[in-house]
Amino acid sequence: MTISFDGIGFLGFDVFGTVVDWRSGVARAAGPFLEHYGIDVDALAFADEWRSLYQPSMHRIRSGERAWVRLDVLNRENLETVLARHGADVGAIPDDDLARLNTAWEQLDPWPDSVEGLSLLRARFAIGALSNGHLAGMMKLARFGHLPWDVIVGAEMAQSYKPTPQTYLKSVDAAGFRPDQAAMVAAHNSDLKAARALGLRTVFVRRPSEHGPAQTSDLEPDADWDVVADDLIDAAHKLGCA
Amino acid sequence: MTISFDGIGFLGFDVFGTVVDWRSGVARAAGPFLEHYGIDVDALAFADEWRSLYQPSMHRIRSGERAWVRLDVLNRENLETVLARHGADVGAIPDDDLARLNTAWEQLDPWPDSVEGLSLLRARFAIGALSNGHLAGMMKLARFGHLPWDVIVGAEMAQSYKPTPQTYLKSVDAAGFRPDQAAMVAAHNSDLKAARALGLRTVFVRRPSEHGPAQTSDLEPDADWDVVADDLIDAAHKLGCA
Repeated sequence: MTISFDGIGFLGFDVFGTVVDWRSGVARAAGPFLEHYGIDVDALAFADEWRSLYQPSMHRIRSGERAWVRLDVLNRENLETVLARHGADVGAIPDDDLARLNTAWEQLDPWPDSVEGLSLLRARFAIGALSNGHLAGMMKLARFGHLPWDVIVGAEMAQSYKPTPQTYLKSVDAAGFRPDQAAMVAAHNSDLKAARALGLRTVFVRRPSEHGPAQTSDLEPDADWDVVADDLIDAAHKLGCA
Repeated sequence: MTISFDGIGFLGFDVFGTVVDWRSGVARAAGPFLEHYGIDVDALAFADEWRSLYQPSMHRIRSGERAWVRLDVLNRENLETVLARHGADVGAIPDDDLARLNTAWEQLDPWPDSVEGLSLLRARFAIGALSNGHLAGMMKLARFGHLPWDVIVGAEMAQSYKPTPQTYLKSVDAAGFRPDQAAMVAAHNSDLKAARALGLRTVFVRRPSEHGPAQTSDLEPDADWDVVADDLIDAAHKLGCA
């Protein structure tokens, strides 16, 4: 069944987890680093641990405790925290090596359906990254994975982090649309909840292995999102783009 | 001869005149409008006149006389000024019609070499619109003309208008590069002069009919720009992308 998105001109996409597979990509970059420095932790567990500091670090900014900084700054701080937890002498690791590992977040594989799904959706809608990632990182990720964005908006544009209202509102406005002309596409119920509260339509995409085989969160929609899809190609079909 | 751009990762492009032909596109949209409202002015002359108010309107913002507003706001004001000059009763024209004509700036044809040239350059460099146009307008223009930008930066990102230094510096920084890792591509000597003063490399592209057959400005480079090209395909060849 095709779902009507008449009047919708813009789709904003969550990226980490929804469009790209951060876990395997971060582990791929971390593996040789951990081995080189003799840090005894499984690369996938390391990726999970690094990612687990993502929300708390953004929370300090959302709460006003800290001024806005780009996500690569937060990722770098969190990297050093996780390394120290595992006994690494972070000060003894060359800055270049830490900086290079931090760019793992700019070299993540799209899920197998992502490029085709985005391309199908783009034929009807303007599509944009609406991520907490910074602009340069989003651009490099798009070049790495051939993601065909029309525009990159999100946290840096708004100088705030999702799910604050201004992150969605400033992004949609900058792209030239009203909230009721836009939809949020995400694999995370919390992202869609925040977007719906502002008048955006919602597209839930199942990504049951974002957090690996033992994932327990966001396996299913927890509200009646406008579209529920198994992947981005399925979302395109359900929106009549195919 | 191939010119070395070793160490350069990002090319920022002027858009109006350098990548797209604003004059014929604006005239194409203005023609039926002028006829419908009985405004007796040639459509190409109207386009030139509308465009002639572009720099003065940005000047008021660059000088600090006025707070930054998006280019579509300036274009709309300038449109009403030009219509009034030609005796139109602007208040009697439906707002929707004025708004529609104002979107002419989002529906301009690329020069015949632009899409191929950008695609060639993109294989080696990250490429971005670094225009005085606003983000939404640049996005719509890219969708209209299939311009394969990796990113859109420029005036809105910087909340300033070229040739202020911050417009270039904030744009290049947001794209993730230092000024000495970036180049400006433009058909306008003044744009390149400002970019070079900040440490960017410079690529001059000849667009001898941007202002029509009687054009007198920017026919030739007025300094030893790093690359001087006849069009964007030629620029790509000169930079070894072909």
